Amino acid sequence: MSNAIYLGVVGVGGVGTAFLSQLARLPNAPKLVLLARSSQTLLAPTPAYSPAIPAADWATASAAPSLTKTGAMPAEEIATYLASAPGRAILVDNTSDLNLAKAYPTFLKKGISVVTPNKKGFSDDLSLWKDIFASAAEGKALDLVATGDQVTRIEGVFSGTLSFLFNTFAPASGSSNAQWSAVVAQAKELGYTEPDPRDDLNGMDVARKLTILARLAGLDVARPDSFPIESLIPNELAGLPSSADGIAQFMARLPEFDAQMAGIKEAAEKQGKVVRYVGSIDVPAKKVKVGLEYFDKDSAIAGLKGSDNIISFYTQRYGANPLIVQGAGAGGEVTAHGVTADLAKAIERLK
Amino acid sequence: MSNAIYLGVVGVGGVGTAFLSQLARLPNAPKLVLLARSSQTLLAPTPAYSPAIPAADWATASAAPSLTKTGAMPAEEIATYLASAPGRAILVDNTSDLNLAKAYPTFLKKGISVVTPNKKGFSDDLSLWKDIFASAAEGKALDLVATGDQVTRIEGVFSGTLSFLFNTFAPASGSSNAQWSAVVAQAKELGYTEPDPRDDLNGMDVARKLTILARLAGLDVARPDSFPIESLIPNELAGLPSSADGIAQFMARLPEFDAQMAGIKEAAEKQGKVVRYVGSIDVPAKKVKVGLEYFDKDSAIAGLKGSDNIISFYTQRYGANPLIVQGAGAGGEVTAHGVTADLAKAIERLK
Repeated sequence: MSNAIYLGVVGVGGVGTAFLSQLARLPNAPKLVLLARSSQTLLAPTPAYSPAIPAADWATASAAPSLTKTGAMPAEEIATYLASAPGRAILVDNTSDLNLAKAYPTFLKKGISVVTPNKKGFSDDLSLWKDIFASAAEGKALDLVATGDQVTRIEGVFSGTLSFLFNTFAPASGSSNAQWSAVVAQAKELGYTEPDPRDDLNGMDVARKLTILARLAGLDVARPDSFPIESLIPNELAGLPSSADGIAQFMARLPEFDAQMAGIKEAAEKQGKVVRYVGSIDVPAKKVKVGLEYFDKDSAIAGLKGSDNIISFYTQRYGANPLIVQGAGAGGEVTAHGVTADLAKAIERLK
Repeated sequence: MSNAIYLGVVGVGGVGTAFLSQLARLPNAPKLVLLARSSQTLLAPTPAYSPAIPAADWATASAAPSLTKTGAMPAEEIATYLASAPGRAILVDNTSDLNLAKAYPTFLKKGISVVTPNKKGFSDDLSLWKDIFASAAEGKALDLVATGDQVTRIEGVFSGTLSFLFNTFAPASGSSNAQWSAVVAQAKELGYTEPDPRDDLNGMDVARKLTILARLAGLDVARPDSFPIESLIPNELAGLPSSADGIAQFMARLPEFDAQMAGIKEAAEKQGKVVRYVGSIDVPAKKVKVGLEYFDKDSAIAGLKGSDNIISFYTQRYGANPLIVQGAGAGGEVTAHGVTADLAKAIERLK
C-alpha cells in the first residue's frame, strides 16, 4: 500500500464549494478521487484511481471524458470505492445528511477516516455516537480532558444567527429600540437565518452542538432533545406549516409577541444585565441546558459582536477565569476552514 | 526499535513540578528516564533504561538505589543519553535557559523531539530559529496559515503581569483611583511580577512572544529587540542595579512617575477609551510593535479580567471580527498544561 492518500468528498453546497477551493490551494493535498452530490457522482476511474478530479476546477471537470460519472451513490458504495483505493482514504462529508452520518461506522470499519462539519452523526442517538467511536481507531476527548484537566462548566453562544439577533436586540453598550420581530426580519433579509427562521429559533442547532460537547466532556447524552431546550418560537405559531406560505404567516404574526420579548429584555436591564441565548453544560451535575440567560454587561458573552460565537471552558486548572475561544460562527468559508484544518490533522495522523 | 517512548525532563521549578504531577496522571505516559536540574541529574540506568523514574514521586525517587545519580549534565550528554534509548525519545525543557535552547538543533538532529515553554530558543537570534527548524522533521506554521488562510494582523495582551496592572489601573467598567506605583506594588506583593518588576515592565517578555508569533506568521524577525518596544521603566530608574537594594530603590522612587502614567490614562479616557499594553503584528507591512495603545471600552482587549491574556487573529477568512483566544496567562499549572498538551501531540506523531 502506498503512502498516497485518496479523498472522497460529499456535498457541494456553501461549505462544500468553499472547502474544494481551499483544498485546491492546500500544499501536498491528497488526491480527490470521488466527488458526490445528490444528483451526480464523479469518480477517478478504477483500478488506477487516476486521473484525480481537479479540486480547483471540479465544476467543469464533470464534462471531462477521463472521469467516470454516475448518479447518486449510496454510502455503502462510496465506502467500497474508497476502501479499494491503492492507499489510505479519507471521507469528507460536507452535507448535513443524517443518513450519510449513520454510515460513518461502515467507513471507519473499512479504515477510512472521516472529516466532517455534519453535526448529525455526533448529536443523534447515543447509540450512533458509540458505534462511531467503537469503529474508529482514534479515541475521543477534549484536549483539556486528554491532558488530565477537569472541565467543570462549558458555556457559550453557539449560533451565529442567535448571536446576531440578541447582540442587535439587546446590545451591551449603547441601546436599541428595535422590536424583536424587526430584528428577526432583518436577519432573515441578510441571509443570517435559515430559510425558515424557526429552524434557528427552535434552538435545535444549538442543542446538537451542546450534545456533541457534552459527550466529549464525558456525559452520556441520549439524544439532542433529552435536556431542556427553550424554544423562541411562540407556541401559537409552532403549528404553522413549513411551506413558503407558513413562513410568511410566521413572519407576519411574530410582531404579536414583541411585547413578550421586550419584557424579558427590560427585566434583564433592571438588573443591569443583558439577555443572551446560550447553551451550558454543568459537568459534575451532568446537566445540559439551552435557552435565555442574563449576563453582566461587561462579561465576554454580553460583549460579543456581530454574529460571532463564543465558548468559555471552566476547568480546575484555569480556575475562575475560563479559557475562551471566540470568532466567526457562521459562513461557508469559515466552516470550510475548520474542515480543511481537520483534514490536515487527519493527513498528519495517517502519514 | 520498540514503540516505547522515552522522556527526558529538564527543570523542576514551578512549571516543571506542575508538569511532573500532570505527567504522573497522563494515560499511557511515556517512560521518564532522565530528570535534570541545575544541581543533580537522575537517570534510568543504561543499557536497559529501566526502571523508569516515577513521575508522581520524583522528589523522593532520587534516594532510590535503582536509579543513577550524577551532577549537572551538559546538553550534549543529555542528547547522547536520550538518543541511545531503545525507542523514540522526547526532551521536555521546562527551563528558561538559553544555553539549553541553543542545543535544540543537536537534539533534533539525533531524532529527539523537543517540547518546551522556553521562549528563548524561538525568540533569540533568527539563525537559531532557522537552525532549529532545519534540524526538525516537522515543519512550522500557524494552523491558520497551514490551511491556506492569510493572517493579516495579530494583536493582544501577552503578559499576565501587564494584563493585571492595566486591568487594575484603568478598568474598562467602573473606575479606579489607584496610583500606578501602588498597583505595581500590589502586583509585586501578590507574586504576579518577577522578583524585579522591571523584568516585566521592560516589555522583553512580550517582545519574545511577539517574535515567535511573527516568525510563525512568516516574518523574518532578526532579534526580539529588532522592533519598537516601549519600556514602562522610567529612564531615570533604568540604571538602578538589579540587586535587592536596587529593586527597593526602584519601588521607592516609582511614585515620582505616577503623574506621568495618570496623564496617559486620562488622555485615553478623554477619547472614551482605556490604555493597555499590547503587542501587535501587521503581517503585510511586516511590522511588529510592543507598547501602550488605546482601546474602545467595549472591545475584547479592554474587557479582559484579572491576569488573563488575549490574542486576536485577523485573517482573510475571518474578516472584520477576529478569531480570539483568551484565558489564564500565567501560573505553573496552566503553563504545564500547555506543555502536557504539546507532549500528547508529540507522542501522537511518533506513534
